[in-house]
Amino acid sequence: MTADLKQTPKNKLKRLPERGSYDREKAYAILDEGLICHAGFAMGEDIFVIPMAYARMGDVLVMHGSVASRLAKTLSTGINMSVCVTHLDGLVLARSQFESSMNYRSVVAFGNAVAIIDEDEKNQALKALTEHLVPGRWSDSRQPNRKELGATTVLTMPLQEASIKVRTGPPKDLEKDMDFPSWAGVVPLKVVTGTPIPDPTQDSSVTPPEYVTNYQRPTR
Amino acid sequence: MTADLKQTPKNKLKRLPERGSYDREKAYAILDEGLICHAGFAMGEDIFVIPMAYARMGDVLVMHGSVASRLAKTLSTGINMSVCVTHLDGLVLARSQFESSMNYRSVVAFGNAVAIIDEDEKNQALKALTEHLVPGRWSDSRQPNRKELGATTVLTMPLQEASIKVRTGPPKDLEKDMDFPSWAGVVPLKVVTGTPIPDPTQDSSVTPPEYVTNYQRPTR
Repeated sequence: MTADLKQTPKNKLKRLPERGSYDREKAYAILDEGLICHAGFAMGEDIFVIPMAYARMGDVLVMHGSVASRLAKTLSTGINMSVCVTHLDGLVLARSQFESSMNYRSVVAFGNAVAIIDEDEKNQALKALTEHLVPGRWSDSRQPNRKELGATTVLTMPLQEASIKVRTGPPKDLEKDMDFPSWAGVVPLKVVTGTPIPDPTQDSSVTPPEYVTNYQRPTR
Repeated sequence: MTADLKQTPKNKLKRLPERGSYDREKAYAILDEGLICHAGFAMGEDIFVIPMAYARMGDVLVMHGSVASRLAKTLSTGINMSVCVTHLDGLVLARSQFESSMNYRSVVAFGNAVAIIDEDEKNQALKALTEHLVPGRWSDSRQPNRKELGATTVLTMPLQEASIKVRTGPPKDLEKDMDFPSWAGVVPLKVVTGTPIPDPTQDSSVTPPEYVTNYQRPTR
C-alpha cells in the first residue's frame, strides 16, 4: 500500500468535498479502468485540452497521442499539465432539477510531463500503453523498430498531486420534493465492446484471439 | 447551414490533418451526441482539466459543474477555456504497433467563458443542459426556484474557434507487415444504458417514463 496522494492548494477539493478523496489505490483503480485521458496544457495564453492514450506504470503516467507531437518542441524543459480520466456511470434523475446529477468516478492529476528519450524506456512505455488498452496484444503484434520509436513521442508524468471525485447511488431529493409526481432514479451507463470487425484485407481463416473475443476492462 | 468554424493558428490541425476538419455541422453532431465535456483552464501557472455537463444552444456552449463554482470569482472578466468532447468508437488493432490506433470523434473548442447572470437566461441554459442529457426530463421534473438559480453557476462560451478530429475504419498496416501472423481489426466500443434503477424511496407503482426506458443518444 503506497502513500496517499499529496494534498495541495491546487488539488484541494472545494465543492462537495464529501465526494472527494486522495486515496492512491482508488485513484489507480480509476486510471487502470479508463481507456483515454484528457490532457490540458498551456502554450502562451492558449489552453489546449486533447484526448490521449495513457497507461499507468507504477507511480507514473505515460501518455501518447497527437498532443505529444505538438508539444515536442517545448518538452525538453517539462510542461505543466493536468490530466483527467472520467468514468460516467449513470444519469441521476432527482425529482428536482437542482438535485439531479451524474454518477461518475474521476481522477485529476497535476504535474510536469517530459518526453521519454531513452529507446528502451520508450519501448517499455509503448508496451504499457498497448497492454493498458488491449492486455495480451503486445507480444502478439509486430513491435516498433528503431525508426518507429524515433518517430513516436511518449510523455511521462509522475503521479504525485491528484484528487479523486466520485458520486454513486440514488438521487437525494429534499424532503419537500418527495411527493413530486415524477419517476426518480438512475439510468446506468457503461462502455461495452461490440463484435470484433476483422480487417477486410485479412484472410477469413484468421480467428480473433481470446484477448479480443473476451475483451473487458479491469473492474473496481 | 452555418459557416465553417474559424481556422486560426491555435486550432490548425498539424498532425495527420487528413483526420481533421472545421465543418460546423459535423462538430455540432459530435457535441450533441456527447454526454460530458472536459474543460481546461489556467489559474495563474496552474492548469486544470475537469469533467463538466454541457449542452449546445445554437452556436453557444453552456457548461455546468463543480468547475463553475471554483471559477466563480474569476468569471466576471471571462476565462480562457478549451473544451473537448470525445467519442471513443473502437480499438484499432493493426499488425504493427506503430499503425495501431483508436477510432474516435472529437471536437476541441476554444473561447472565453462567462457566467450567465440573467435569471431567465440561466433557466433556459439549465433547461438545455437537462434536455441534452435526458430529452423530455425538464417538463417532468421540479424546476429550479430563484434560490436554486442563484446557487448555480452556468458558463457560456461561443462556438467560434474549434476543430474536429475523426478516425474511422480498419487498421492500415504497411505492405511489408501484411503477412505478420496476428489478427488485425477493430474492437468497436460504445456507451450503453443499463436497466433503470428506481430511487429506493419511491413507491414501486411509479413506472419509469418512456424517455428513460427508451433512452438513446442522437445518432450521427
